[in-house]
Amino acid sequence: MVAVIDKKELNSVGLVQTEFVSFYDKIKLECGINFGPVTVAYECYGKLNKAKDNAVLILHSLTENAHAAGYHSEDDKKAGWWDMMIGSGKAFDTDKYFVICSNVLGGCNGTTGPSSINPETGKCYGLSFPIVTIPDFVKVQKKLIDYLGIDKLHSVAGISMGGMQALEWAVSYPDMMKKLIVIGSTHRLSAYAISLHELGRQAIYLDSNWNNGNYYDKEPPFKGLSLARMIGMSSYSSQEALKDKFGRKLQNKQKLDYDFGINFQIESFLNYQGNKFKNEFDANSYLYLTKATDFYDVIEKYGSIENALSDCNADFYILPVSTDMLIQPRHSQEIVDALKSLDKNVTFKIIESNQGHNALFMEEEKLTKVLSEVYK
Amino acid sequence: MVAVIDKKELNSVGLVQTEFVSFYDKIKLECGINFGPVTVAYECYGKLNKAKDNAVLILHSLTENAHAAGYHSEDDKKAGWWDMMIGSGKAFDTDKYFVICSNVLGGCNGTTGPSSINPETGKCYGLSFPIVTIPDFVKVQKKLIDYLGIDKLHSVAGISMGGMQALEWAVSYPDMMKKLIVIGSTHRLSAYAISLHELGRQAIYLDSNWNNGNYYDKEPPFKGLSLARMIGMSSYSSQEALKDKFGRKLQNKQKLDYDFGINFQIESFLNYQGNKFKNEFDANSYLYLTKATDFYDVIEKYGSIENALSDCNADFYILPVSTDMLIQPRHSQEIVDALKSLDKNVTFKIIESNQGHNALFMEEEKLTKVLSEVYK
Repeated sequence: MVAVIDKKELNSVGLVQTEFVSFYDKIKLECGINFGPVTVAYECYGKLNKAKDNAVLILHSLTENAHAAGYHSEDDKKAGWWDMMIGSGKAFDTDKYFVICSNVLGGCNGTTGPSSINPETGKCYGLSFPIVTIPDFVKVQKKLIDYLGIDKLHSVAGISMGGMQALEWAVSYPDMMKKLIVIGSTHRLSAYAISLHELGRQAIYLDSNWNNGNYYDKEPPFKGLSLARMIGMSSYSSQEALKDKFGRKLQNKQKLDYDFGINFQIESFLNYQGNKFKNEFDANSYLYLTKATDFYDVIEKYGSIENALSDCNADFYILPVSTDMLIQPRHSQEIVDALKSLDKNVTFKIIESNQGHNALFMEEEKLTKVLSEVYK
Repeated sequence: MVAVIDKKELNSVGLVQTEFVSFYDKIKLECGINFGPVTVAYECYGKLNKAKDNAVLILHSLTENAHAAGYHSEDDKKAGWWDMMIGSGKAFDTDKYFVICSNVLGGCNGTTGPSSINPETGKCYGLSFPIVTIPDFVKVQKKLIDYLGIDKLHSVAGISMGGMQALEWAVSYPDMMKKLIVIGSTHRLSAYAISLHELGRQAIYLDSNWNNGNYYDKEPPFKGLSLARMIGMSSYSSQEALKDKFGRKLQNKQKLDYDFGINFQIESFLNYQGNKFKNEFDANSYLYLTKATDFYDVIEKYGSIENALSDCNADFYILPVSTDMLIQPRHSQEIVDALKSLDKNVTFKIIESNQGHNALFMEEEKLTKVLSEVYK
């Protein structure tokens, strides 16, 4: 079992496994449809204490999944997506807290989504899967938390799309947590963010293999999904970070020669990322989840942020990234202003980083420092 | 002739026509190929004076053409792309100056490009068209200026990709102009700008109708070109401008209903722009011209901006836009620093606008005011 010890030496939670639970009673979705059954993929790290008051719910971003920390096998080279933040002595300290992460409804990593089999037809849902929303994600998460026997969470923390879910927890289940942490997120996306999502969707539609979402028994729309990912990636970084990392460096060349191939490292990087992603994600899920984030708008639904959050008395932590192009700090500022006008306990801290939206996955030290205030 | 009077009443140069000249001697391109014949499409406004010292060369951006001002017919509803700037009493005053604008080599609006017929084969060039560069564009423009009998230009002015050409005029023909105006442009694109171009190219490649550039006798890659345009458009505006114009306004809906169609005005706008563009531009030209701008790099070629511009003693005007995401003011600042270190006469003025790169086509008043300093 040397390999296991190796994983532990990486200061990781070690070997973990994704667990699954299926809920057979129908769930009333925001679109009006009663939908079920729903299987939820989730992972847990640390131990739930006897009082059951040390549970932390982590909510993932658009393209992530339930596997937030640790490794799935001894020869697994890639740790969970937020391994830098979750573990013994880390920001989300598994010596103290019971950390839960589940894949969202509509996703493609274990939780029921468009690539799942519809038990009524025996075929994949494809676009017959209902439109799902951020509140629907949260409704399913609440069922998981109930199933785990937890009456109240210590905290709910989400990044990017996960931050929207965290906010929605405060809206839908305002008494369910003591602390609420929203990192690099917003109560509603800007026109700019919607436009990038629409470009990604159009890239998928453009791939003739997409075939109106019916491709599960054929060659999937890999190229379209790959381009959608590349479009996303172009907004996750910052111009400064791209300059520092790539600038105009050439790919495998000493001098610029003129041809239609990959000339610059930035082109190679984007194509590599797109190509990698196509094997990791489902194109239809990409459509559903980008639409879910576009639709989320607590002001449209409740009239104001104040109306939406008035019932929640958790301690709020609103943490945007200084150079985030996709979700700028001023978007978070609006939440803070609303919470202050409600006289809520809110901490607003801008994470100073030149990594843009990617800071959420890169700035271990800065995020850990900010979160040490939450979990002191 | 009432319609003509109407056009004049619009304070336009009125009816104009595109002219053509063909150069049959081969042109030595930067890639090493001797290429020809080359036909150049150009338009002229105003009159060349007897001293032939009042000629102003206007250089267009990626997707524009020779038709910079006026109308092509009496029922033409759309004026030239910079009609707001060119005409009697306007910034480029046709009462005083002889204004010339030509379509670039590799383009698709009259000047020889990949959609032109290769006289040796009788078929469209497609991807057999040679790789062309900004210096190649300028070499062809110089032939046009020689053909028009002009020994020295009063001024050379370019926006965006046209600004690169203006700079290249200063590099290749440093004694050919008295004034050089670079608006919303740079001596080399950033990793971010290259990445957006690469996304656009990938969108074209993704369209199965592209067929490796061989589509001139078939259905063209309209969808890919449309998406490429949408990707470009997403960076031409600013986040502020998108917020002001679209925000989260719904398209033909009072309330958000959840479906996979167009939900927001910003989505409708992008799709409309993409759809319009596909009938106006050639996909292969989009590939060639984006590559030409990506390749342009006076530092890579000459070692420094100083080396590149040392021979030019024109008055320089470097005019970036404050909120330009694509080509930020700091990119222009580098040119200014170099010119100052060379003790050149340089005016640096940031055009304060919340319209981003689009300001080049929208901020008539601000641009006119800045240019009044040049043409006083």
